Amino acid sequence: MKPRVLSREDCESLLSRERYGRLALSLGDVPYIVPMSYVYSGGRIYLHSRGSGRKIELVRKNPRVCFEVDHLETNRWSSVVITGKADLSSEMEAKMRMFDAFVGKDLKGHGGKQFGREDLEKMEMTIWEIEIEEMTGREGMW
Amino acid sequence: MKPRVLSREDCESLLSRERYGRLALSLGDVPYIVPMSYVYSGGRIYLHSRGSGRKIELVRKNPRVCFEVDHLETNRWSSVVITGKADLSSEMEAKMRMFDAFVGKDLKGHGGKQFGREDLEKMEMTIWEIEIEEMTGREGMW
Repeated sequence: MKPRVLSREDCESLLSRERYGRLALSLGDVPYIVPMSYVYSGGRIYLHSRGSGRKIELVRKNPRVCFEVDHLETNRWSSVVITGKADLSSEMEAKMRMFDAFVGKDLKGHGGKQFGREDLEKMEMTIWEIEIEEMTGREGMW
Repeated sequence: MKPRVLSREDCESLLSRERYGRLALSLGDVPYIVPMSYVYSGGRIYLHSRGSGRKIELVRKNPRVCFEVDHLETNRWSSVVITGKADLSSEMEAKMRMFDAFVGKDLKGHGGKQFGREDLEKMEMTIWEIEIEEMTGREGMW
C-alpha cells in the first residue's frame, strides 16, 4: 500500500496523543538523532534538556531541526515529520510556558510533581521551543 | 538519573530485539527523519525502500546517515544511535543479503511470504546497507 498523506488535523491529533519523539540535528551535513519527550501546545513543540551536551552544542551552531513522532504497530505505521527552528532559553518565562503546556496535557512530567515559581527558578534546564515551518504526516503499511 | 552508557553487547541486543528505527539524513545542514523497518545483521543495518522519493534524493546527494533505535517505556528509555554511510543498491546480491538477514531474524517481512530468486529479481526495491562507523547506546529515566 502506498503511504497516505495525513491531514493537518490528523497530524495534530497524533502529536497530541504521543509523548515521545525524535529530534534530528545536523552539523557539517552529518545528521544526529536523539529521542526526547515533548509536548505539543499552541502550535509549537516544547522539549527540555540539560544545559550542556552534544545536542546543545549542535543546535547552538545550527538551529535547524527536524522532529519526528510516530505510532508504530506490527503491520501499520503513522508518522509526523516537522521541520523548523529551535529557540533555546533558560529564562523563567520559557520554563513557565513549558510547564503550563505539560500541565495542560496532564502529562505529569517529572513524577507528577507540582512545581511553583520558586521550584522552577531553581531548576537548571534548557527549554527548546520549536517553531514549526513545515509539518507532514503519513500513514501506511510496513 | 543521569543516562548510563550501554555496552556494545547491550547495543547489539537492543538492535536485535527491535524492528523499527528512524533514519536521519541531511542536506545543506537541514536534517530530515523517517521511520523505517530494519534488520541488524553481520554488523550492518539493512533497510529497504522504493527507488524514488525524498529520502532517496537526499541520500544520493549525501550518503552520511544517522540511524536511531529505541525502546521507550513510561518512565525509562534506552536508545542506540548509529552514524555511518548508506550504500544503496538494486542488485540481486544486495536483495539476497537483505532477505537472508530478514529470514535469519524470523521477521516474516512482507506478510511472511517466502521469496525465491525469481521473485526477488522482479521486485523493484532499493536496498540500503549502513556501514556503522560509530555506535552509542544510552539508557535513562524520563
